Amino acid sequence: MNGAGDKVRIETDSLGEVSVPADAHWGAQTQRSLANFAIGTETMPAPLVRALGIQKLSAARANMELGVLDAKLGEAIVTAAREVIDGTLAAQFPLSVWQTGSGTQSNMNANEVIASRANEILTGTHGGKDPVHPNDHCNMGQSSNDTFPTAMHIAAASETIERLIPALKHLHGALDDKATAFADIVKIGRTHLQDATPLTLGQEFSGYAKQVEYSILRLENALPRVLELAQGGTAVGTGINSKVGFAEAFAAKVAEETGHDFVTAANKFEALAAHDALVELSGALNSVAVSLMKIANDIRLLGSGPRCGLGEIALPANEPGSSIMPGKVNPTQCEALTMVCSQVMGNHTTVSIAGSNGHLELNVFKPVMIYNVLQSIRLLADSANSFTDNCVSGIEANEDRIAKLLNESLMLVTALNPHIGYDNAARIAKKAHADGTTLKEAGLELGLLTEDQFAEWIVPADMIKPRA
Amino acid sequence: MNGAGDKVRIETDSLGEVSVPADAHWGAQTQRSLANFAIGTETMPAPLVRALGIQKLSAARANMELGVLDAKLGEAIVTAAREVIDGTLAAQFPLSVWQTGSGTQSNMNANEVIASRANEILTGTHGGKDPVHPNDHCNMGQSSNDTFPTAMHIAAASETIERLIPALKHLHGALDDKATAFADIVKIGRTHLQDATPLTLGQEFSGYAKQVEYSILRLENALPRVLELAQGGTAVGTGINSKVGFAEAFAAKVAEETGHDFVTAANKFEALAAHDALVELSGALNSVAVSLMKIANDIRLLGSGPRCGLGEIALPANEPGSSIMPGKVNPTQCEALTMVCSQVMGNHTTVSIAGSNGHLELNVFKPVMIYNVLQSIRLLADSANSFTDNCVSGIEANEDRIAKLLNESLMLVTALNPHIGYDNAARIAKKAHADGTTLKEAGLELGLLTEDQFAEWIVPADMIKPRA
Amino acid sequence: MNGAGDKVRIETDSLGEVSVPADAHWGAQTQRSLANFAIGTETMPAPLVRALGIQKLSAARANMELGVLDAKLGEAIVTAAREVIDGTLAAQFPLSVWQTGSGTQSNMNANEVIASRANEILTGTHGGKDPVHPNDHCNMGQSSNDTFPTAMHIAAASETIERLIPALKHLHGALDDKATAFADIVKIGRTHLQDATPLTLGQEFSGYAKQVEYSILRLENALPRVLELAQGGTAVGTGINSKVGFAEAFAAKVAEETGHDFVTAANKFEALAAHDALVELSGALNSVAVSLMKIANDIRLLGSGPRCGLGEIALPANEPGSSIMPGKVNPTQCEALTMVCSQVMGNHTTVSIAGSNGHLELNVFKPVMIYNVLQSIRLLADSANSFTDNCVSGIEANEDRIAKLLNESLMLVTALNPHIGYDNAARIAKKAHADGTTLKEAGLELGLLTEDQFAEWIVPADMIKPRA
Amino acid sequence: MNGAGDKVRIETDSLGEVSVPADAHWGAQTQRSLANFAIGTETMPAPLVRALGIQKLSAARANMELGVLDAKLGEAIVTAAREVIDGTLAAQFPLSVWQTGSGTQSNMNANEVIASRANEILTGTHGGKDPVHPNDHCNMGQSSNDTFPTAMHIAAASETIERLIPALKHLHGALDDKATAFADIVKIGRTHLQDATPLTLGQEFSGYAKQVEYSILRLENALPRVLELAQGGTAVGTGINSKVGFAEAFAAKVAEETGHDFVTAANKFEALAAHDALVELSGALNSVAVSLMKIANDIRLLGSGPRCGLGEIALPANEPGSSIMPGKVNPTQCEALTMVCSQVMGNHTTVSIAGSNGHLELNVFKPVMIYNVLQSIRLLADSANSFTDNCVSGIEANEDRIAKLLNESLMLVTALNPHIGYDNAARIAKKAHADGTTLKEAGLELGLLTEDQFAEWIVPADMIKPRA
Repeated sequence: MNGAGDKVRIETDSLGEVSVPADAHWGAQTQRSLANFAIGTETMPAPLVRALGIQKLSAARANMELGVLDAKLGEAIVTAAREVIDGTLAAQFPLSVWQTGSGTQSNMNANEVIASRANEILTGTHGGKDPVHPNDHCNMGQSSNDTFPTAMHIAAASETIERLIPALKHLHGALDDKATAFADIVKIGRTHLQDATPLTLGQEFSGYAKQVEYSILRLENALPRVLELAQGGTAVGTGINSKVGFAEAFAAKVAEETGHDFVTAANKFEALAAHDALVELSGALNSVAVSLMKIANDIRLLGSGPRCGLGEIALPANEPGSSIMPGKVNPTQCEALTMVCSQVMGNHTTVSIAGSNGHLELNVFKPVMIYNVLQSIRLLADSANSFTDNCVSGIEANEDRIAKLLNESLMLVTALNPHIGYDNAARIAKKAHADGTTLKEAGLELGLLTEDQFAEWIVPADMIKPRA
Repeated sequence: MNGAGDKVRIETDSLGEVSVPADAHWGAQTQRSLANFAIGTETMPAPLVRALGIQKLSAARANMELGVLDAKLGEAIVTAAREVIDGTLAAQFPLSVWQTGSGTQSNMNANEVIASRANEILTGTHGGKDPVHPNDHCNMGQSSNDTFPTAMHIAAASETIERLIPALKHLHGALDDKATAFADIVKIGRTHLQDATPLTLGQEFSGYAKQVEYSILRLENALPRVLELAQGGTAVGTGINSKVGFAEAFAAKVAEETGHDFVTAANKFEALAAHDALVELSGALNSVAVSLMKIANDIRLLGSGPRCGLGEIALPANEPGSSIMPGKVNPTQCEALTMVCSQVMGNHTTVSIAGSNGHLELNVFKPVMIYNVLQSIRLLADSANSFTDNCVSGIEANEDRIAKLLNESLMLVTALNPHIGYDNAARIAKKAHADGTTLKEAGLELGLLTEDQFAEWIVPADMIKPRA
Repeated sequence: MNGAGDKVRIETDSLGEVSVPADAHWGAQTQRSLANFAIGTETMPAPLVRALGIQKLSAARANMELGVLDAKLGEAIVTAAREVIDGTLAAQFPLSVWQTGSGTQSNMNANEVIASRANEILTGTHGGKDPVHPNDHCNMGQSSNDTFPTAMHIAAASETIERLIPALKHLHGALDDKATAFADIVKIGRTHLQDATPLTLGQEFSGYAKQVEYSILRLENALPRVLELAQGGTAVGTGINSKVGFAEAFAAKVAEETGHDFVTAANKFEALAAHDALVELSGALNSVAVSLMKIANDIRLLGSGPRCGLGEIALPANEPGSSIMPGKVNPTQCEALTMVCSQVMGNHTTVSIAGSNGHLELNVFKPVMIYNVLQSIRLLADSANSFTDNCVSGIEANEDRIAKLLNESLMLVTALNPHIGYDNAARIAKKAHADGTTLKEAGLELGLLTEDQFAEWIVPADMIKPRA
Repeated sequence: MNGAGDKVRIETDSLGEVSVPADAHWGAQTQRSLANFAIGTETMPAPLVRALGIQKLSAARANMELGVLDAKLGEAIVTAAREVIDGTLAAQFPLSVWQTGSGTQSNMNANEVIASRANEILTGTHGGKDPVHPNDHCNMGQSSNDTFPTAMHIAAASETIERLIPALKHLHGALDDKATAFADIVKIGRTHLQDATPLTLGQEFSGYAKQVEYSILRLENALPRVLELAQGGTAVGTGINSKVGFAEAFAAKVAEETGHDFVTAANKFEALAAHDALVELSGALNSVAVSLMKIANDIRLLGSGPRCGLGEIALPANEPGSSIMPGKVNPTQCEALTMVCSQVMGNHTTVSIAGSNGHLELNVFKPVMIYNVLQSIRLLADSANSFTDNCVSGIEANEDRIAKLLNESLMLVTALNPHIGYDNAARIAKKAHADGTTLKEAGLELGLLTEDQFAEWIVPADMIKPRA
């Protein structure tokens, strides 16, 4: 990073001096982390960096309110933290996800960058520890051990509320619209992938809409624990070196800044040592993925064909489907979405393993947990929107095909059970199946019913609800 | 199963005649399943069989109430179903978990056994289909497709409410008691498995208690969807062949019978085609497992030794620990519990995969889903009880050891930050570490504080809370 | 277990006296375990108990060969161990999977039962420790820490070789037969579940056969590490208290007894502290499950219908498919198999988590690991056999349906690319799709080819291989 | 992307015209994909893009060799593909992982970019389809369906061989060096985290070295199936539209270009429809992760302290460990590595789910599978290197601490078994434990041995191997 000709400045930490790029805001500890953790290409996710900005801003405000942080320094910190929040300083957060398991280095990255920028605001010169010190002021009354999980919760809750739930509501609306639009289209049902009794295409879509409605509810149910903030626990949960009242004042500042119902965690030992709240949220994300996998699979199955599949619905043709087979259009939005679902399900395994591996006062799988949770949220949100706009909204029913399949089906025979009994109904179905004929032909031939009775008893539109 | 000399009787289904053991209550379809699915050693779990009994009993009552089932037949069904519920007929349910994915064969097993026993009650002769018919009466207005998921929900909710939540409350109580009992024992904290600032042993246990408190809450939050019953959807969710009002009447009967708040599912298409509610419940079980893994790991770590580990607590000695090392006592309850946790986490992967693989109107991974969910519930409940009674309740603090480690620690240095600054405090800690001396010696030698100041500033009992 | 009226005898261990059922062969430690681990319903799997018999038999033989075990005692141990191997003493192994994580209690169960039975052989009285002592003789030169993983490897390797690989070969043979039988049936291909260029049904099945061929290879590749035995490592891997040469002599005895290529582990520290070999084997089982999931899914999809699905193949009708829909036959073997696959995939998560959680000289997730590995092996083997015999062998091609779909397809258009170019071919396909006509009609109407050219260029049977 | 003032050019595909950035090499289909799949931040991994370059280069060479591709066009393709391989054109591959499940759009991205660049080489103007056509020339005899899995295998095999195996060899060397360096340091063993019989620190590290040795072997065992290439299967595995001999010629070119033993896949139907080879490789990666998790956990446990943990080894101090606790140094490399391991384990769940979800002739979870496999490879490789260089190589034994713990231990008592019997040995250990005394004191007091006998019998250095 610092070739012979590059300009550098010297920063120090408790281990000694470090050369950092002259124009970087970050300091010694960030620079050491870059050298010590050259692992992978994944850097701390943007929502987490943003959350660190919110955290530092809120901490400075709480400390000023409690009278322990000088207002001039505090306001400079707030201004610098605001630039972290709005993304202006994004390039100043180069650290890998794969660093210390407490996220200490990213907390120090935030402290160093904000101190540097605050010093620049106050003195015209960036870097250094004066007048604003990364530890003494930016990290005042804080430890990485409570700061980083606080940022994790701010990021996870905000992304769920601001990004994922709206996307799922968008999807729910589109599915619900289709349930209404298709309410009168009677079609063959399929169980075990085998022909079954009829239902309406609208009823089928109402099931999908319900799944998404409950998906939203599952996320909302998980949020209260994510809205609890570890801040104020400092190093091991006791709150050592923080001011009495800091935890509560801080949470209020975060709630004010974000507009979400953040509160201070009921038990800080739990909040540092375990990340069950994120495991729980990841479990909800996993449930959402399972639901969307079912929906997307069904839609690609219903749209299979055009001539040799089920072909009951038509999906929008967004792009050429094949580099060799002209005219082919594929269910690509279903494919992107189901790939996302498999990713979210695997991420949940990662989060669960990481969550189970805490030791004593600290879980040190924090970065991998938040990386996966935020990826799952983002991917589900984006793919739900893409699937809605580029697929669901444009689905049309192939009514001719639906009618043709319904009329050819043998399973309408079920309607005969109340009239001629289960065993006789079965005889008709089996005969029609063996002979390749219709149910009516088989029933007449067996002498089990008359033509009029058939017309009266087998009415698909009557088979889509309980009998009066 | 039926050797040459065994007595058999002939039963029939739509495919023809089948020989069944003469003294068995089950009929043709159960017998076919035994032959066709000779897979593994796992039979349908007892709580699921019991739930099928509750389901058949409640269906008969609802059908009688609706006036579609003859009271004499209905009461015989109720009596027979009661024997399924109380376990008297347990041997009549021999089918494998690994059967048809809709659980059809276990539904028919229940229908056949209950019809046979009802016929025995009414006529003195078991077996057959007269006067009580397995399909026409026991399965009246029902399909396997709504019956089996209904039994799944009855079993999962009942086991959670009756078995798991009480066990977790028992564990919570024991942990909470220890938190109180150990409230004044100040000990070294550990983060990154490295010495950190102090806390009390009671604070440490309060974190565990909080984890279990939230575990219970997570299960309770998942229950409302599990308390929804699919019954009334019949074959594909439309309710074909059931009587209007059956779904609601049935759910009321189940609620009455079990004492739990069962209701009819809001959307029957969702209830047959997806099992998101069980994926959600499994997610809560997974969260519980993650929490308990952390707790059990910590307790074995705190109890490690007796002489070469942390040794801060003593676990009860329940059995000889080794066949070769006399005198050794191992944290065996922690081991059983963490093994259970790993099982539950893997079961959750199975449930999630199974839940994602539904097709159109029916998910056909029903038996594997309920097998795993019920195993997870049972194992967590039993191991929580065993861990509580055989380990947690008997934990004692090794106060001498705790005091010794606390006083040797270097991390009390953190208390100096507000007095001499972060960088000076670091110098003292590093010097003591390098020289193998105490903090006081190092601090004096560096001239950074006096003996009186040390005594005043470093008071472990003051380090376990925020400063005023 | 021991009610007031039950007969008991007194046994002792290092913690004191214990009452055991008078007629049981097991002793004090087994009895304690029953009381202390009342968790779940899962007892040690039969193949593991059998493997403990092989282990004790081989250890006695090796110790006799090395001259450290008296021959009279040794032969009695061999005789008793033989009864464990052949299952005669199965009821003497009542312990739960969820016990101490080293399997110590099951090792002691084996020691106690074999000592008791050997004493009975030698003296006429069972129980006790004289003349054959459970520790001093049955466990001579052994520790649970090397014994139990040795039994795990014996069981896992034997079950893989004797049960699973033959079952997969059986399945492979059936798939390969179908590949041959269906070699000339040209059918529509499907990619993205959309119509694609043709292939033969035999080619389709050849892919399945290849998957199973490689499944077998993957298992075989994993075996060499499973064939390594930990025995001889004793307590921590050093071999303390065992005789020099015991490890090698023991492995030779096991190889002789089983007929499999067991050897002593190259590094005993690795063999006790990690169970990577079982994680690796579980990974192979997971791969097998993934392969079989694909195959079973395809077969149910190809067999979907009978009238409203793809319907290209007919599956055997083994049982009535529905309790409400007469005449319906479901792909139940596919369902059982795919449920098994989801179980195996989840078991692999469990095994991986358990394998990753070893500490220092010992992994203490041994019972849960072998329980899952053996369940996966058994389920895959049984379901592969069931699927082969009850489904694959009876699959028939619906040639009329296949021909009909092939001729209606638009994707034969791909054959025109070399003749009229990609873009023109696409125009024909799109026109036919829009107009609902055939490719020929569309091509003629667009003037892009003649009737003769169409007949010459579009020959499905020529489209199933590269061009010369 | 293309604001009002941005320069664009018009490109076309079978769906019509598309505006693309004027200076981009990509064309219509890439541009459509950007619009249709605005999902997440993950773009196709660099090794996959590189592999597409190798694939296009090798295809052009094979087609020239077979005489079906004009040499002038072919050489321009080769030159352009070379720039893809060397990374010059990296910015031309902007597509998301979350696109069509066949990777069609990334294949077309490669075809469009290489055609554009080849046209620029030949005519001075980039873009368009003349003289080099993206489909007719760059994709000659190919389909996305064989091209993309070919690139997946090229990337996965190359990264494993070139990146991961060397990193693991590096780690193995460092562990093996420590095993040698620590060969004579006798220390207490620990099983169940409880004190056990002694071993040397070198023996402990030899177990780790063995795990890594086998990790390498597991990867090598998985490679042969990954070295099989799908190319030549074209659309559905039949090879339609490719020239006879293309598959073999192509594989030879790839082998030549990469230096790795690539061959054409034995069965192309399997190679398109299933990705079992990547599931298998991912299983090996999962095994590696499980092994490294154990090693890293042990090392952090052995290095715990400095004063209140085990403290047997000292890890390098690479950075300040805490923002609040001065002087603290954390096992951060262990933390980064174990986080990576949890990621790889979760990725394996994703890959397994994705691999199980193929349908008929095509698995359409290709991008998510290769994304996860490549991430796992990269993370394991980088973290193995980082862990080796920044942790393992610098580990030092704290010999004083090791000796102190060894001598305080009670477990040396095991050495008395052969002399005074198991039960007497147990009495000594229990007495010493209860009284807080040494074994010698307890043994003498119980009259079970003399001082001389103790000195003769209890020699830790004799307890680290079998007895002669």
